[in-house]
Order: sequence, then structure tokens, then C-alpha cells
Amino acid sequence: MRKFIDDDFLLDHESSRILYHEFAKEMPIYDYHCHLSPNEIAENKQFQNLTEIWLNGDHYKWRAMRANGISERLITGNADDKEKFDAWAKTMPSCIGNPLYHWTHLELKRYFNIDLALSEKTGDEIWEHCNTLLKQENYSAQAIIKKSNVKVICTTDDPVDTLEFHKEIKENENIEAAVLPAFRPDKGLEISHNEFLPFVNGLSSSASLEINKYPDFLKALEDRVKYFHNAGCRVSDHGFESLFYEESTLEEASAIFDKAVNGQTISLLEEKKYKTYTLLFLGKLYHAHGWVMQLHIGAIRNNNTKMFKRLGPDTGFDSMNDFELAKPLNQLLNQLDLENELPKTILYNLNPVHNPIIASAIGNFQNEEARGKLQFGTGWWFNDQKDGMLRQMTDLSNIGLISNFLGMVTDSRSFLSYTRHEYFRRILCNMLGGWMHKGEAPDDYELMGTMVQDICYNNAKNYFEITR
Amino acid sequence: MRKFIDDDFLLDHESSRILYHEFAKEMPIYDYHCHLSPNEIAENKQFQNLTEIWLNGDHYKWRAMRANGISERLITGNADDKEKFDAWAKTMPSCIGNPLYHWTHLELKRYFNIDLALSEKTGDEIWEHCNTLLKQENYSAQAIIKKSNVKVICTTDDPVDTLEFHKEIKENENIEAAVLPAFRPDKGLEISHNEFLPFVNGLSSSASLEINKYPDFLKALEDRVKYFHNAGCRVSDHGFESLFYEESTLEEASAIFDKAVNGQTISLLEEKKYKTYTLLFLGKLYHAHGWVMQLHIGAIRNNNTKMFKRLGPDTGFDSMNDFELAKPLNQLLNQLDLENELPKTILYNLNPVHNPIIASAIGNFQNEEARGKLQFGTGWWFNDQKDGMLRQMTDLSNIGLISNFLGMVTDSRSFLSYTRHEYFRRILCNMLGGWMHKGEAPDDYELMGTMVQDICYNNAKNYFEITR
Amino acid sequence: MRKFIDDDFLLDHESSRILYHEFAKEMPIYDYHCHLSPNEIAENKQFQNLTEIWLNGDHYKWRAMRANGISERLITGNADDKEKFDAWAKTMPSCIGNPLYHWTHLELKRYFNIDLALSEKTGDEIWEHCNTLLKQENYSAQAIIKKSNVKVICTTDDPVDTLEFHKEIKENENIEAAVLPAFRPDKGLEISHNEFLPFVNGLSSSASLEINKYPDFLKALEDRVKYFHNAGCRVSDHGFESLFYEESTLEEASAIFDKAVNGQTISLLEEKKYKTYTLLFLGKLYHAHGWVMQLHIGAIRNNNTKMFKRLGPDTGFDSMNDFELAKPLNQLLNQLDLENELPKTILYNLNPVHNPIIASAIGNFQNEEARGKLQFGTGWWFNDQKDGMLRQMTDLSNIGLISNFLGMVTDSRSFLSYTRHEYFRRILCNMLGGWMHKGEAPDDYELMGTMVQDICYNNAKNYFEITR
Repeated sequence: MRKFIDDDFLLDHESSRILYHEFAKEMPIYDYHCHLSPNEIAENKQFQNLTEIWLNGDHYKWRAMRANGISERLITGNADDKEKFDAWAKTMPSCIGNPLYHWTHLELKRYFNIDLALSEKTGDEIWEHCNTLLKQENYSAQAIIKKSNVKVICTTDDPVDTLEFHKEIKENENIEAAVLPAFRPDKGLEISHNEFLPFVNGLSSSASLEINKYPDFLKALEDRVKYFHNAGCRVSDHGFESLFYEESTLEEASAIFDKAVNGQTISLLEEKKYKTYTLLFLGKLYHAHGWVMQLHIGAIRNNNTKMFKRLGPDTGFDSMNDFELAKPLNQLLNQLDLENELPKTILYNLNPVHNPIIASAIGNFQNEEARGKLQFGTGWWFNDQKDGMLRQMTDLSNIGLISNFLGMVTDSRSFLSYTRHEYFRRILCNMLGGWMHKGEAPDDYELMGTMVQDICYNNAKNYFEITR
Repeated sequence: MRKFIDDDFLLDHESSRILYHEFAKEMPIYDYHCHLSPNEIAENKQFQNLTEIWLNGDHYKWRAMRANGISERLITGNADDKEKFDAWAKTMPSCIGNPLYHWTHLELKRYFNIDLALSEKTGDEIWEHCNTLLKQENYSAQAIIKKSNVKVICTTDDPVDTLEFHKEIKENENIEAAVLPAFRPDKGLEISHNEFLPFVNGLSSSASLEINKYPDFLKALEDRVKYFHNAGCRVSDHGFESLFYEESTLEEASAIFDKAVNGQTISLLEEKKYKTYTLLFLGKLYHAHGWVMQLHIGAIRNNNTKMFKRLGPDTGFDSMNDFELAKPLNQLLNQLDLENELPKTILYNLNPVHNPIIASAIGNFQNEEARGKLQFGTGWWFNDQKDGMLRQMTDLSNIGLISNFLGMVTDSRSFLSYTRHEYFRRILCNMLGGWMHKGEAPDDYELMGTMVQDICYNNAKNYFEITR
Repeated sequence: MRKFIDDDFLLDHESSRILYHEFAKEMPIYDYHCHLSPNEIAENKQFQNLTEIWLNGDHYKWRAMRANGISERLITGNADDKEKFDAWAKTMPSCIGNPLYHWTHLELKRYFNIDLALSEKTGDEIWEHCNTLLKQENYSAQAIIKKSNVKVICTTDDPVDTLEFHKEIKENENIEAAVLPAFRPDKGLEISHNEFLPFVNGLSSSASLEINKYPDFLKALEDRVKYFHNAGCRVSDHGFESLFYEESTLEEASAIFDKAVNGQTISLLEEKKYKTYTLLFLGKLYHAHGWVMQLHIGAIRNNNTKMFKRLGPDTGFDSMNDFELAKPLNQLLNQLDLENELPKTILYNLNPVHNPIIASAIGNFQNEEARGKLQFGTGWWFNDQKDGMLRQMTDLSNIGLISNFLGMVTDSRSFLSYTRHEYFRRILCNMLGGWMHKGEAPDDYELMGTMVQDICYNNAKNYFEITR
């Protein structure tokens, strides 16, 4: 029996261990999608305790605590930081089997050199030990990024954002990593949501442009794309509950926009038409700027109305949707490709049932513009665990070419999540090393090691048109 | 090469073997969902031969025989019991790979101490041997329950049932196990089926209450819930071809009820509205009584019209449905939760594609009322095999907390099916022991052994509000 | 670490190796579904080089090259054969993990005795070596079929085909294999496609029958079925983007046919009605002739409009569809069964999500007419790899009886693809041998070896009513 999370954690074969230790381990991190706060990076935040860096805002942990019957007071309520940590420590042994158990202990090991299993018994010791370290300079936000060997960070930003913190970071010579914004205009597409009109107003202000009609709105979006581009942005991001494709003319989309601005109700068909037109417009804009378009498809959010009213969005009440993806996805990509304006695109699905749909659909639009122009994104959210990552990589390699895969993103709000790259790399190396071990791939470390390093870092470096 | 079904069957690692033999094996059985006949328990039925206890009513075996080209005469026809057994014995070798092959041989081993593989050649010997034993007192229905170490049995009962056999059992001091009814009002929800009006009439009689209008109907259901509650019932059960959620007022539901009573055709939308209102009503009732609500989702039944006319329902012509589950499921749970009337709920899906939908949706409604208030039920029907159980437990543990899982149910009509708990426990222990073996879970038998025992028995004991 | 593709490739256990080497390996091939050209067989085509036999028409390889950023000129363009081969050689190392990597090297080994891994470096040597061999007589189309130990080949043919090459082949005493047509009337069902009217005209000519009305059309189809039957055809084949079932009368179908002939637009509902009626008509015809009906369900084709205009269909721009299958599938089978006219049927699905739907639905219609009358077809197209085949066989064996499975088809346009049977057999033997190794199946080589041989060849031989 192997020790819990030893040096060869998740590496079952000699070949897997060689691939990880000799090829993957030292590669830098290219984190092209995360939710870190540029503000906290710019101010070089120093965290007061484990609750602050670990539990505040981490709805994965909140869900686990709720599933374990923990009182909401100890999760998002007015309990103090130590009480909250204790509740988490108590929940931890019940998380065996869930990725949180591995993530938590990897983070404790790599950042705090802790070998203890977190539980009610060990909680106090771990709390003291970590909090002492967190107060040291080399545990500041910037220090953690540096010691994690991160070269590029793409945050997730609202089009109306001033990007002031990104500018501050860029001017700070102590920060070696490129910290760039990503353009996420969801509020401008969700025409039926409450946040649409405030977004239109915010966009008007930020673009210094009066928005009366839909073309004004598109013009303002274009201005913000340029503004983001000048700030180094080369990536956009969209989140959709499901995918849609309804052909629409500019006139139709304009009329629907007018209805929304006038407070009229938008039908489901109108919503789809508006979104299709706007997304195609943006897709072409991304293509013109050499940006990568990311689509995150299939999360239904805020399912618990009672808790939404109490805590707002992104608090642990989202789950997977199911819907038919193949047709709208192909239609969307086809329409952009037909006009030679399909940008490089990364598709992430929340429901794993869509894996083979995406893996096979991207094959319809690959061409000589790039190796792996269309990408099947790494296991997202509820798929961000050993099985989910393996399934995504297996489906990708069976149906497409995993050698061109862009690899892992943290997709996290926490500075301690970089160990997820280690987790991913071990799983990747075990898969590829397993093929070698069984004679299903050549016994050629140069070939296989290069493939590993490409997936860990080089493919992303070559794919994104980011220079710094 | 290991011997077929040896002591360490399905246990691949030393750690798995320790978990099974030292922790799981001796745990009692908490069978909170089955289709045993309370009549047969009450009368302490003695079976005449293997066909009677094994083949009569077991549509899993019937399907296997049909798939093997066996004549219907030898399955449900007028062939004699020995001929039918011979047909089954002949089919058995063709079942390798199907769970029936394991189930059959586990049952032969555990209850009859038989090590032979059943086939045409060994059929006669096994027939004689088992039939001799079946005639002994310690092979009566009650004796089998006792030797299987079963503490709780929840049968599946029609709301109009008198529960006379349950009362008889309760008064029988020789029966140690609690044998309790479960409330299954499907006929009262399926407003478009032929059985709806007869059910309304039956309900009226059993509740001694004239049912003219929908509120009378709801009142009668409430009376029966109370009646069942007094008989010890703490669990309800519903079966749906797919899930639905259509908001409906009492007035609307009443009007639809009237149409049905008057023999008018109900539209699909009306059916959904009626079912939604009625299910919400029942859900609140279950919550008020501290009951657990079980939903079995996704079987399309009686697909073979020719055979349905000949043999009726539950004869082996049902299969999996596919449909979009995420939205109606979240809406249903949300509506009950919004009013603080969501009962403890167990969700079973027939189509494994719904695994991650359920595993992620339940996380939206967990809270401090219980550890694992919302439950993802064990692999049901076509998923009740090694792969299906592993997939369910893997999806549950990746997305939720398997430590709070309620574990196995027999879901069977046969008294010999208790070995399915052994089958499940071996698979569970192999999964958890595999994690230990690979260093993916702590090398801590107290921790992991407790988790095993919780899933085998303790979690169910703590979850259901059953006392005896 | 094992050598890449050694003798025991994919065989992890001693029991798996025995099953493969002693039972599976020498079995002949029964290739009941492929896309070989009867013309090339009849003329005993001699291939000039690897590009001609390998790359021309193989859209699997084209997709891989496009995903690797290769210029279309080197794929389907005017580059010469050597340039195209070089582009493929260069792409090969990027295909590790994709079935193309295994297929390619198995073909190089078995037909050309090459042990090198194909790459830019080894390309020239392999090109020269293989081209020299290809020019030898024992590399002609007929010679490859013979050395591959193929007993039966069912090609895929348009109902209007004269079948002249099949006749030529039948009269050629040097060809031992039965090379029979299969009836694929897709163009006659796709009433909304451009090819419908030309098909009606072609059918009219080939059946020497004026087609004015729908009954004429059905009569002409029936004539062609008889014509095919006389040419030895015993198998039909249909491809559908999704499955449908809309009850329709002859009058309705006739009226829809008239609209199409008159150039009027057909609604989606009308299309479904027309297809349902026509498919039921054909199904009964197949049943009457003792034919097997094959349905290939779920490919959306020609998703890339730009490339479709340039290259036409079957050029690598098809992918998986998602849709609800359970209801229409059961309704279709039920309708034919109800009238006792359901033919033997093989169902292939492109989206693996449909595996358990098909595996469970076929169980509703099995009966004594045959062992495994209804069949779940082997992993098709995007599922034709190790994981896809294992998943199909696992789902089949969990839900039905894998012992009655018809096994592998090449489904290929290339004469070198027979090694896919070897690939399949190794995977099959590893699965069954794995069960033996773990004590999950009896340690009985006679029993398990017979099962292997049945799946490799005997089941198909007994299932199809083909005699030669």
C-alpha cells in the first residue's frame, strides 16, 4: 500500500514516473483562464489566515459543508474565521473520494509542508502552523504566484472594467508573470436578465458613448475590445446555460434590443436570435484581433431561490444542465467559418455527456491556420477531478489529437490552486506513461516527453498570441 | 488466475479485502426499497422448488432467456416448473458478462452451498439439491430473512392497501426484522392511464370518503398517508417515465381532475400540470410526516404491445428513457425548498447519463437538516451491476460526498436477492480499498472502515426516521 | 515496459493471451458491413503506392491532418502522391492516443512486415518499401482479401445499382469469398434532400417502371429488393441523422410524396411521416425476404458548408448528433413486431450516450425466432477504438447477452483495414480473459474460447441467411 500523496502520487508505472518527474514537473504554468482578483495581485495581498485564503468565496468547499449537514452560519454566516475553519476541518474526512480531499492536502503539502490529514483532531495544529506562515512576506499573493512558476495569468473581467489593476501590475517590475485581462461580456448577451440594462448603461459610460440603438451597443462593445486589446487582452470568455443558434438579421436583433431597453418582455426565440447575432458579431471581432474565444457551456445557475435571495450568485447553488448541443454548436462554428472569421476557439462543457459531441464537432472546422485551431477545453468545474480529466483527455485523444491539447487551467479564485496543475500533470503523465507501459505507445521518451511538455505549457504558449 | 467467485471475489487489493472481511461483511442489512410480498412474509411461505422462488416473476431472467432465443412457453407459458428451470439452466452460460451470472451463482453458493456452474449439464443435480433444501423449515421466507441478517424491510405498497399483512407481521414475535410499508401512489398521478379512475374509486373506498372533486382526492391521499404512517411507514416512492415541472394552481389542477373524471382527454401540458401540483402536495405531506421521498426516474414501460396484451405489465418489456432532466428536477426541488417543505429525498435514475445531473443538482439543496439530506440513489435496475454501481459511486464521490451515501437496496421480488448486498459491498470495498492501495486515500482502517460501515448500514439507520 | 505492438498487444493477462492466440486469431472474417468498391474487387485492382491505397478517400486521416494544421493542398488538393504521404508521415506522431496510430502501425506490420514507427524520419524508407510490395501480384485487391482470410464481404450499394461487378465477382472462380451487395436506400428516404428526385428517376429506370405516385415508388423499391435478393443480398442498411417515429397512413405518405415530386416544400413533420411509412414498408419487405436490417443512427453530416461546396460529402466534416432516441426506437420496433414483421435488426449508434438505450430497447423485442434476433452493433466510426469498443461491449454485456454478439465489421473503404478485426479480437479477448483472470468468469477455456469464436465469426455465420 502506498503512502497517501507520496512523491509518486497518481503515477502507477515507471514510465509515468519518468514522464512526470523528468518532463512535466518543472514546466512553468500558463494559466489562461482563472478568476483571481487583479486587485489582490496588484496590492500584493497578505492573507490573515487559512479561512481568508481558502474558504472565503470557495463555493466548492461550501457545497461540501452543506452536504455534510453543517450550519450555514459556519459557512457563509457570521461565525468567526476559526469557527469556519473548524467546520471545514470537521468536514474534511467526509470528503474522501471528492477532489477537495486531494486538492486540500496537496495545497497543505506544497505551500505549508504539512503531511497531516486535516480533521477535527489536527485542525488546531494546522491552523496555527499555516497562519504563521501566511503572515510572512513570501506568502503574499505575488510571492505565491512567483513560487508557483506561473508565467501567464488571464483573469476574467467585465467589459466595463477600467483594468486599472492590470495596468498597475504591468508597471510593477517585481511581477514577472504576465497578468492579462480576459473579456467576459455575459451581461451584454443575457438580454432577459436583470443585469442587462445596468450593463448597457455601464458600457455607455466606460466607452464614453451614448447607447440608444443596438448599433451603438455593438460599437461600444467594439471600443471595449480595442481597449482590452491595448491592455494586453488576447482572450475572451462566454458562459451559456445551453447553446443556441437562431439566424437573425441586424434588423431583428435591433428590434429585440429596443424591446429590452423599453422594458418589454423578450420571448425565448427572440432571446436566442439576439444572442446569436451578438455572439457572431463578437466572434468576428475576436477573429479580427487575433483573440481566442472561450465558450463555457452548460451551467444552470442559482437553482436555489431561497439561498440566491440571501447570498447572491456564485455561492454554490449551480449545477449541470442537459440539452442538445450538436446542431447549434456546428451551426455557430460553421457560420463564422463560412465568412472566414472563425477565431481560435476553446469549448468547455459542464455536462460530460457533451464530451464526444465537442471532440467530434471541432474536427469539422480544423484547418491550416493553426495546429489545433479548435480546442476541446480541459475538464471544467464538476469535471475537474481525476475521472473527469481522464475522461476528457480520453475522449479528445480517441476522436481528435491530444498532442495539440492546451492542457490545464486553474479556473480558481484562490492563490493556492496552482497545485491543480500538478494534479493534472500527474494524471496526464499516468495516462501517457500507461500507454507506454502497455506497449500501446512507443517506448520513446523523447517523443512522449515532448508531448507531455507541449500539453503542460508549450502548446498554450504557441496558441495564444500573447507576448510580454 | 483466480477461482470463480472465491472468498476474495471482486476484491483486488489487500486493503479491499480487509475492508470487506473485517468491516463490511458482518453488517446487517437495511433494505429500504424492495418488492417483496408482505403476504408471503406473513404466511412464512415455503417454496416448492427453484422455479417458484427464482423464476416466477423475475423478468430479468425472462429477458435473458428471450435474448437467447428460448420459447415463450418455457418462460411464462404452460411448461412445467422443471422444463422452465431447464431452459434457464441452458441459458445460464450465455449470461456470462451479465450480472445475472454473478447473482445466480452467489445465490447458489450462499443459500445452497453450491460451487458448480449452472448449465444444461449441472441443472438436474442443482435442481434436486436445492429443492430438497427449499422444503426445510430454515428455507421459509422468514427464515431466509433472518439468516440474511436483515433488520429493516420496506415493501412497496398501493395507497389503497389495507396493510393487513404488515400488521400481522408486526404482531408476529418470531419476526425480528421491521417489515414496513412504503407509499407508492403512481396510479393517482398517472391521470392519463386506464388505471386512474379505478384508483380514484379504490382510494375513495379505502379512505371511506366520497371523492367528487380534486380537494376530496387530496384529502383522501392525506388520510392514507396518515394510515400508512400509523402502520410504521416512513418512506414513499414514485416512478416516472421522465421528470416534469409545470407550475399549476389548485384551480387548474382541479379542472384537469374534473376532465379526467368526466372521461375527457387530457393534454400533455395538462398532465404535467396535474402531476406537478399533486407531487408538490405529496412532497409537503411527506415533509410534514418526516418521511423520505423516493423518485425513480426514467423507465419507459410496456414497449412491446403484443406481449403487454398477453402478459400485462412488469414482464420484461421495459427499458431506459432519455430526456432532459436538469431543469425540471431543480425546479421541483426548489419549489419545495422555497416553502421549507422539501422532505429528505432519494433520486434514482435509470439512464446513467443522468448520474452527473443528479449528483450535481442535489448539491443545490443540501443543508443543516441532515447529513446528506438529498441522496443520489444506488445504481437502479439496468445499472444494478458492477459497472453501473461503480459509475454511480464514482459520480457521487466526484461531485458530492460518498461518505454520506445510503448504499444498497435489493429492489427485488425474490427472497434470495439479499446476496446483492454482498455483491455491492465487495464492489464498494474494492473501490475504497483501491484508493488506499494507490495512496489516493489515507492508510487508515479506522477512518476507511467506518466509512464502509456507514455506507453499508449506519447511514440508512440514521437517515430514516424508523424506530422499532 | 512492453514493446510497441508486440505479439501480446492489448492482452494483459495469460488468460487473455490464450483466448486470443488459441481461439480468436485463426478465425476467418465475416465482414457484413463495409464500403469496399465491388469494381476494385472485380478488376482486381493493383495499387500504385501507399497514398492510393491508404490516403485516397480516407477521411479519418484527412481530419487528423487538418487538426494538425496541414494545408488542404496536401490532403485533398493537387499535391502529388509523395507530398501527401509525407504530410501524413509528419502527422503520424501527433496521432498518438488516436486509433489511427494503432491502425496505421498494425497495417504496416501485418501487410508490409514493417516495425518502424512512421514519422517524417522514417517516411521515405516506408514509402519505398511498401510501394515495391504493392506492385506485386500478391498485393492486389483480391490477394489482400484472400490473405486476410475473409469469407464474406457485404458492400454498401445504391438500390439503382446494376450490381454488375457483384455478378462478375460471383462468376470469378478465383475469388473464394462471397462478395454480396447490401441495399442502402437512403436517398429514397431523405425526401427533403436534393438527391431525392434524381433518385426517384434513377429508380424508375433501374426498375423499368414508371413512377408517378407513391405506390409506384414502393413497387419499384420492392422490385429492387427482389433484384438484390437474386444477386445474393441478405442485408440492408440505413443511415439517419436522428431517429423518428410519426404514425402515417398510406394516404398521408402519398400526399407528401406528391408534394416532393411537384417541388413543394416538405415540413419536418411531413418528412418524419413519410420516412416512417417508407421505413416500415421496407422493414416488412426485409422481413419477408429473410434479410437483416441495419440502422446507423446519429451522424450529422456536411457541417462545414464551405468545404462541402468544395469537396462534397464524405470528406471529413461529419460528427455526432444528440437527440432523444428511446421513444422513436421502441415505437418503430414495436410497430413492426406487432404485425409479426420485424426483421432481424442491427442497431448502430454514433453517440455513445445511446449505448444503454439501445442495449435495453433491444431486450423488449427478443424472441424465439433467433438467438439475439435484435443486435446492438459494434462501436461505429467515432467509437471504433479501444475505449469505444470496450464501452459498447460492456454496455451490451451488462444489459444484454454479449455471448450472442455479432462482433466486428470493418466499415472501411480500404483493403488494408482487415487488421481492425485483429484489433477488435485482442480487445475482446482481453475483456473476457480479464474476467477469467479476476475470477469474474469461470476458469473454463472451452466455455470462454467458444464464446470468443462465436463472437469473432460463428454468430454472424449463423445469423445471416447467407449461403454460398
